[in-house]
Amino acid sequence: MGPDLIDRLIVKNESKIVYLVMDGLGGLPREEGGRTELETARKPYLDNLARQSVCGLLDPIGYGITPGSGPAHFSLFGYDPVKTNVGRGLLSAAGVDFPMTERDLFMRVNFATIDREGRVIDRRAGRIDTEENRRICRKLKDRVKLPAGIEAFFETEKEHRALFVLRGDGLQEEIGETDPQKTREFPHPPAALIPEAAATAGLIRSLMDQSKAILADEEKANMVLFRGYSRFHRFAGMEERFGLNALAIASYPMYRGISRLLGMTVAPQTATIEEEIQTLERCYNDYDFFFVHVKPTDSRGEDGDFEAKVKVIEEVDTFIPRITALEPDVLVVTGDHSTPAALAGHSWHPVPAILAAKTCRPDGVARFGERDCVAGGLGRMPMVYLMGLALAHARRLEKFGA
Amino acid sequence: MGPDLIDRLIVKNESKIVYLVMDGLGGLPREEGGRTELETARKPYLDNLARQSVCGLLDPIGYGITPGSGPAHFSLFGYDPVKTNVGRGLLSAAGVDFPMTERDLFMRVNFATIDREGRVIDRRAGRIDTEENRRICRKLKDRVKLPAGIEAFFETEKEHRALFVLRGDGLQEEIGETDPQKTREFPHPPAALIPEAAATAGLIRSLMDQSKAILADEEKANMVLFRGYSRFHRFAGMEERFGLNALAIASYPMYRGISRLLGMTVAPQTATIEEEIQTLERCYNDYDFFFVHVKPTDSRGEDGDFEAKVKVIEEVDTFIPRITALEPDVLVVTGDHSTPAALAGHSWHPVPAILAAKTCRPDGVARFGERDCVAGGLGRMPMVYLMGLALAHARRLEKFGA
Repeated sequence: MGPDLIDRLIVKNESKIVYLVMDGLGGLPREEGGRTELETARKPYLDNLARQSVCGLLDPIGYGITPGSGPAHFSLFGYDPVKTNVGRGLLSAAGVDFPMTERDLFMRVNFATIDREGRVIDRRAGRIDTEENRRICRKLKDRVKLPAGIEAFFETEKEHRALFVLRGDGLQEEIGETDPQKTREFPHPPAALIPEAAATAGLIRSLMDQSKAILADEEKANMVLFRGYSRFHRFAGMEERFGLNALAIASYPMYRGISRLLGMTVAPQTATIEEEIQTLERCYNDYDFFFVHVKPTDSRGEDGDFEAKVKVIEEVDTFIPRITALEPDVLVVTGDHSTPAALAGHSWHPVPAILAAKTCRPDGVARFGERDCVAGGLGRMPMVYLMGLALAHARRLEKFGA
Repeated sequence: MGPDLIDRLIVKNESKIVYLVMDGLGGLPREEGGRTELETARKPYLDNLARQSVCGLLDPIGYGITPGSGPAHFSLFGYDPVKTNVGRGLLSAAGVDFPMTERDLFMRVNFATIDREGRVIDRRAGRIDTEENRRICRKLKDRVKLPAGIEAFFETEKEHRALFVLRGDGLQEEIGETDPQKTREFPHPPAALIPEAAATAGLIRSLMDQSKAILADEEKANMVLFRGYSRFHRFAGMEERFGLNALAIASYPMYRGISRLLGMTVAPQTATIEEEIQTLERCYNDYDFFFVHVKPTDSRGEDGDFEAKVKVIEEVDTFIPRITALEPDVLVVTGDHSTPAALAGHSWHPVPAILAAKTCRPDGVARFGERDCVAGGLGRMPMVYLMGLALAHARRLEKFGA
């Protein structure tokens, strides 16, 4: 069975589903024989929830596959992560709420610093601040010259990150990245990866050369690096597929972007986990499905800071009573992937998960931890099927066949 | 996700992966309530390895499917065992290192004994020895007559087993087997299973009739039985797919053949498990991936000899310290399928597996046994995904998606 079998079985009701997603939740022991971040955290409410629910381990993409945040989130929401693996440019465009058209080509841009010979010496341009990013985007917008029939848009994302958009007929996304991914190397030329992309590659080459000339007097952001080319792609949204009126409570542009691509309403940006929970409480009557995204578990994992990741989990734990007080029909607590502090990056390990609902069949899991979840009633399952389970426990799926 | 998603994510590094494959490892209790062969064996090193690693149960092909050794090994190496299910003839050809061409049709042959009426009375011709097999192959080679444009090759495999090859234009593999699989029955005629195979079927019929006439004066090997027809097929090798420079340490022709088909270097034949480990030690610096194949677990299982299979496992255990002393980045210990002595043959039961690496997330498994592995962190997983996991733990896969 594929993850879209559920689409045919959808029924609507008044039930509420809450997804509490701690980004990069899964971990590893810091030292041999030790405990993971989640196993270390003091989290009485989550442990209690684990006891009252069904637990398991989710594979975001598949065995051994380390997911980027994009495909991992598509999987969480029941979208085949391989088929929906679009370029980062599109996610960025959705993240800044860019008014997309079908003639657009989106590119994720890093402002960078090059030396006199043109070698990249800082791939993040000293992490210039967002205001400086805005000034540079305006400067490019004012000076770049394009052939007739082509428009360009320069949109600030955050710090050194921006979105460039080319609009015109026949633009192709099969273009090589220009980011060399290493310092002390020259940016790559934007290669046409298929013959039909030659004209687009020429256009991007011109955009790259012009930007370099225009930014030559900048101290930090004197170069642009392109990756994640993506044409416009329309997804069947969560209302269309699952009949869910969904709200995304997420601060980071990328997650806001994915949510928008999947037809969720995106709540105004908030700065803290507490504000996210307040948003959930305030909007609880107005939606069926709530995606609450907690970013710092992943960020602290990426930093390799075991203790700090433990602390984020402990902070999230304190908000569990406020979520359960809303009495959602289904409460899922999980991550999109693992980000073990021991690896200081995403990993392929499966993600522990709690699914709490009145219709859960109890298992023997007494605590929320990776090792405990091995023996959970969900077993080890592909993440993409989680949405079907959530819908079932929300009584939103009818019987298959007679 | 399919098992070939990993192909896009390959990165190279200096890591080493060792696969220690005990053929037919999985077992069953001898009596109700008893222990399996693996659970019975005294194997302190394997138990210790299980404690320090992640364990699980692997399904070679799928639930309920009893695999032949061919597809089980393809699955172990990350090749879809259904799509790569080529005829045994091709595996035999690779096993004897036959110089294949694209115009070849390979057949697995058993020499057999028929009675005066032509009924098969021994499907293995009294297990004639390999020397006699060579004599008979030469005899056939000297006397068989073929139409213009067709060549035939008669290659001794071992005991009563041989490889016949027809070389010519337009040969087809859709031919019925002539081995009746039972004694007291006549060999089947080689039927054309599709209309296009009629000419090839006629050719094989002639080969069968001529062989029968030529061998009429033989006491034991007076007939040939054909099966496993296969045309030439090229596989993307392990270097091409995974960037692995692989060495196969295996004594039996079939496993040597599969290894060759998958682009592995095949080490010279050795007679004992100890010699296989010596080969591993001697060649350790020269390859990235090592397939060490232990045959007697399967052979003793096929014999229905529970105690002897236990002893083979205990012997393998004594070599574990020599393997771990090499400090491979990933050490996998498993089988290709189950061969319970209680069934005296291959079975469909999943195979216990250990995956040891620094990046393993600990599970609670304290011993290496079928029952213990049920609670392992790998869960119960399709064997074909094992290679992806091994590559991930060897840090040879990059992130999927942004």
